[in-house]
Order: sequence, then structure tokens, then C-alpha cells
Amino acid sequence: MTVSSPLDRKPLLAALAGIRRRRPPVWLMRQAGRYLPEYRELRRSVSGFLDMCYTPELAVEITLQPIRRFGFDAAILFSDILVVPDALGADVRFVEGEGPKLTPLTSEAELSALGLAGFDAHLAPVYSTLRQLSSALPSEVTLIGFSGAPWTLAAYMVEGSGSKEFLAPRRMARRQPELFAQLIDLLTDAIIRYLSAQVAAGAEALQLFDSWAGVLPEPELRRWCIEPTRRIVTALRARHPDVPIIAFPRGIGATYAAFVEEVAVQGVSLDTTVPLSWAARHLRQEPALCLQGNLDPMALLADPAVMLAEAQRIVAAYGERPFIFNLGHGVTQETPPESVGRLVDYLKSLDG
Amino acid sequence: MTVSSPLDRKPLLAALAGIRRRRPPVWLMRQAGRYLPEYRELRRSVSGFLDMCYTPELAVEITLQPIRRFGFDAAILFSDILVVPDALGADVRFVEGEGPKLTPLTSEAELSALGLAGFDAHLAPVYSTLRQLSSALPSEVTLIGFSGAPWTLAAYMVEGSGSKEFLAPRRMARRQPELFAQLIDLLTDAIIRYLSAQVAAGAEALQLFDSWAGVLPEPELRRWCIEPTRRIVTALRARHPDVPIIAFPRGIGATYAAFVEEVAVQGVSLDTTVPLSWAARHLRQEPALCLQGNLDPMALLADPAVMLAEAQRIVAAYGERPFIFNLGHGVTQETPPESVGRLVDYLKSLDG
Repeated sequence: MTVSSPLDRKPLLAALAGIRRRRPPVWLMRQAGRYLPEYRELRRSVSGFLDMCYTPELAVEITLQPIRRFGFDAAILFSDILVVPDALGADVRFVEGEGPKLTPLTSEAELSALGLAGFDAHLAPVYSTLRQLSSALPSEVTLIGFSGAPWTLAAYMVEGSGSKEFLAPRRMARRQPELFAQLIDLLTDAIIRYLSAQVAAGAEALQLFDSWAGVLPEPELRRWCIEPTRRIVTALRARHPDVPIIAFPRGIGATYAAFVEEVAVQGVSLDTTVPLSWAARHLRQEPALCLQGNLDPMALLADPAVMLAEAQRIVAAYGERPFIFNLGHGVTQETPPESVGRLVDYLKSLDG
Repeated sequence: MTVSSPLDRKPLLAALAGIRRRRPPVWLMRQAGRYLPEYRELRRSVSGFLDMCYTPELAVEITLQPIRRFGFDAAILFSDILVVPDALGADVRFVEGEGPKLTPLTSEAELSALGLAGFDAHLAPVYSTLRQLSSALPSEVTLIGFSGAPWTLAAYMVEGSGSKEFLAPRRMARRQPELFAQLIDLLTDAIIRYLSAQVAAGAEALQLFDSWAGVLPEPELRRWCIEPTRRIVTALRARHPDVPIIAFPRGIGATYAAFVEEVAVQGVSLDTTVPLSWAARHLRQEPALCLQGNLDPMALLADPAVMLAEAQRIVAAYGERPFIFNLGHGVTQETPPESVGRLVDYLKSLDG
């Protein structure tokens, strides 16, 4: 009897290593959250959203809820991308029904007040959450750590909230490019540190969310998204060569092709607008890139037959490429849990 | 002495006919608007935003302001995409500082209350504006009429406002596809009628703004954006074969290539995320497609040398293809008019 390697045991790690099996591994962005009654139940007992992220016993429980219910192939740390600015000293609040609010960063003086001094201590509960998850998860489930990417974090910090167009950070990047570059550099360093500590705490794969990359025009995208991401990936791969990284530069369209040529990630998450036939043909084949995505979250609200037809279309479109089934964006709160169950059952039925 | 044809006189029409000259024609989306002091001056005297759109003498003056100041190659009708839902009987208001508000459309009963009955009478002031512009414009300036595309108009009508993600219309498209299809069909008919009347009133080229196409996943995009747009373009080209049409399906990424294969437009406007090297290679060459775009509006806030370098890069990237210089999105209100002047001067200097 041989000892099984993680790649044999864990379908998600196998896919990220370039191995295509008949049944694709599956997890869903925002698979833990408000669409689950058990999450809403737990949420009622806690005052603030960030409190949940910083309380390991709660974050562990929330992370595990969808694993128990659906048997996903990966558990993603329950947290928020804004814990990084929070740990750097920015003023981050979550206002019920309005989303995140930060004091908009406008000057070099405000930037100088931020730093890595208390960073790891602040994030210790996140690392503790990962350690507990690491021992609690079934052996076939991959534990995914994550961070926001520098551009998206900077965008929230300068805008002070979510936004349709993120004009404030785009304006700063144009009018005060040196100041903006300092902010991006600080975030890049912080993210390398944060993700490296996540690996030390048990994360087996990492995802970088650049949720607002799509508001950047092409030349700005190279400077504020591709370059810093390349730096993060290079640093992490040097320290943790066995930990695959998935990038999610949401909304960058045809530039996905250049992105995966320039950034040595093992996986790339495709947003809902990416045509799979195009992705299968034009996204890096050597070294083998694992594609992830990209069912429309809204398909989970449709008639079950329509939803399953779209899932089948996605499975077929990936052809022979290694891939991870996921959504093209996070699960929405009105998603019926049964619809998620149906999707997972269908994907698991491909085993036979 | 020969009588000159419109193509000889009007650089913009020549570009849309597939002719590449050394100096590209130029106009900017939202070239009339709040960044111009003369617009702000005039705006102070008027109560509501829609009142301006429906008062020909004001709409004519606002349309002409940037032509006088900068000598653009095209004047685009000053109006708003939401005059179409307004003319169909929807309740459209513009709230200062908040943007448009509509009573969200939720049911078949609400949809049945809308219709084409008073449509042309309601839009008569727009047609009058075009007739006046047609005689007021210098002979080398092309008059562009426009409309929102069905998906974007439906998105505002169902959401009731602008939005980051337009979840409400995406949800309706999934849960009540028949109802949503009826709405799209009504809008498609209305837009054909509206644009056809614009041509009768003097519009020499037309642009279809699908500003929120980028929130649709690929299969939904075919149904709610590409198909209805194809129907509009086919109907208009049959009636007005000499009037070129520019489509602007903003944010659809690599699907731009399929879009221009399936929709027989003469021009396509590229958003800021589209890499020009990709566009020059992958977007339809036969019959010749004129590309339009795609300077980042935020570049107009940057150091002049940076802005001009980006403009040069765009001119170079289009290679030998016919193109119209434009932004990848509308002029923002904080744009210095001098920056726009510098850009136009640079482009005009390419003549020599």
C-alpha cells in the first residue's frame, strides 16, 4: 500500500497541476454566505461583519457550512479582502446594507500613517482560522487562502467605498502617479506577507481577487494590475513552490491572454463575460494553465433545466483542458441553496 | 469644378466608409457637458435635465458648444438615452447628484402600460433639434444621432437607476425570460423607429450605446444584446443604406470579435479595456470595419506629455485600419478643456 500524495487525494490540486479528470472539481466564489440559512442564523448573533472575520471559531464554522452541505472540493477561508487595508491601519467599516466604508486616502501624509508595523498581529486571528480549518477539513478538500490584489485594494482605499467606476483612484493614478505607486507598492509587500503567512498556516492554494481590474484601460492595467501581480506571484512561488495560485483579474476581456503569459499563475478564474471557446483556444497552454469558471451566478436563479444546460455547455466548452468549475462571480444572496445542490450533484455525476 | 460628395467633405463619414486618411477624424463621447464652462452657464438657467433635451434651442446650442470651441469632426445630438423609455411612458426623472431614477418595472401589467402610441409626438423636439443642427453645422462636420441599445435601456427600466451590477434586470431575464423578452422587443421596435426618424431629421451617422453590455455573461449577451442589435441594424440599413452605424457594446471583452461578425455595423466603438493590438488583428477586416476609440478619459487629467503619448500610441496601434479617434468612455466633468484642446490640436497636426 502506498501513501497517497495530495494530488491523488485532492481533485482541486490535481486540476491546478494540469491534470484533467472526467469530473471537474468544483467550488463557488462566495459559497459561504447569506444565501445559506445556517449562515444567516449565525450572523444574527454577531455585531459586525469584520468581527466575524476576526473570530476564528465563527470564521471556521462559516467556512465549513457549505462544505458540509454540498461537499465542495475546496473550502475558501471566510474573510474579506479589506482586512489587508484594515491591518495596515486604514479605517475600514462595514455599514449594514451599504457595504464597506473607508476614509478615502488622498495624501502622502495619510499614506505614511499606514504601514506593516502591526500587520501580522492584527491578522493573527485569520492565520488561526486557517490552522483550525487545516485540521478540520476532510482529506480530499483543498483549503484555499486569498487576498485582494493591489489595484482593487487601492481602489477601495482611495474611493472610500465600492463604486461603479472608481473615478477617485483612476484620477489619483493619473494626477499623482508617484503617490499611487507608493500605495500599490505598500499593498504588494503586504499581500506577499499576508499570503505567505496563510500558506504557513495551512492554505494549500491561493486566489488573488482583482475584482475591479476591469475599470483600468490597457496601459494602466499593465502598471497597476499585471506588474504588481507578477511581483506577488514571483515572490510567493519562490517561497512556496508547491502552492498553486489562481488569479482573478475580473473584467479584463481579451487582455486575459496577455495576463496569463506575463504572470506565472497555475490557474485563472474567468468572469462571466469570457467566451469559453475563446479562452480554451487563446489562454496559455504551456505550461498548462487551469481555467476556472464561469457560470453566471444568475443562472442559479433560472429554471433548473436552463441552469443545468449552461453547466453542461461549460463542461463541454473546456474540452481537454484542466479546469475547475466555478461561477464567474460570487453567489448572490437570493440563490436557492437547492439550485447549488443540483449543480454539484450534476458535476459529481460526471465521475461515473 | 466637381461637386464634392459627403465622403470628400466629411472625414468622419469617409472613415466609416472604410477610408483611412493620415489624420483620423475625432470626436469625444460626452463632448458637450459639464466640463465646459459655457455648458455650466447655460445649465444654471434650466430647471431639469430632461427639459434641456426637449428644448430644441438649448439642445442645439449645447450640441454646438464643443464644435465651436474645438472643431470636432462630428457633433452628436445632445440628449439622453433615457428619452426612449420616457417616450414609451415610463416614469423617468433626473435627480441632481444622483443620476436617473425610474419606477422599476416588475410586471407584465406595468409593461402593458407602455407603448408606442405617443412616441413620435413625445420625441418631436429631438427631431426638431436635429433639423436645426443639420442646417447650422459647418459642412465638414458629421451629425451623429444616437440611441441606447435595448439591453441597456431595459436594464435601467428594471433596475430603476444606474447600478454597479444591474442585478434586477439580470434576475428578471433569468426568472421571467418571456416578460423580459417582451420588454426587449418593445425597445427594439422603438429604437428602430427613433433612429429612423433621426435620419429623416438629418442625422448622417448613428451610434448605439450598449453601456452595460459588460454585465451580461456570454450566452445572455447573444440573446439580449447581439440579437436585438442585429435586428435594429438590419432594419435601419434596409431603410437608410447610406447611413453608417457605430455600435458601442461597452465591456464585452473578447466577444467584440463575434459581435462585429454577427452585426453588420460600419463602426465599432472600443471601451478603454480593449487592447488595440488585439482589436487591429481580431476585429472584422472584410467588409472594412472602422474602429473608434479608445483613449482613457482619465488620461485627459494626466500630465499633457503623458496624455499626448497615449494618443500617439493609439494612432500608431490602429495601423492601416480606418479609425475615428475618440475616448473609451465619456468625458468626465473634471476634465480641463485645455487638455481636450491639446488633444485635438495634436490630431489635426497629423494632416501635414
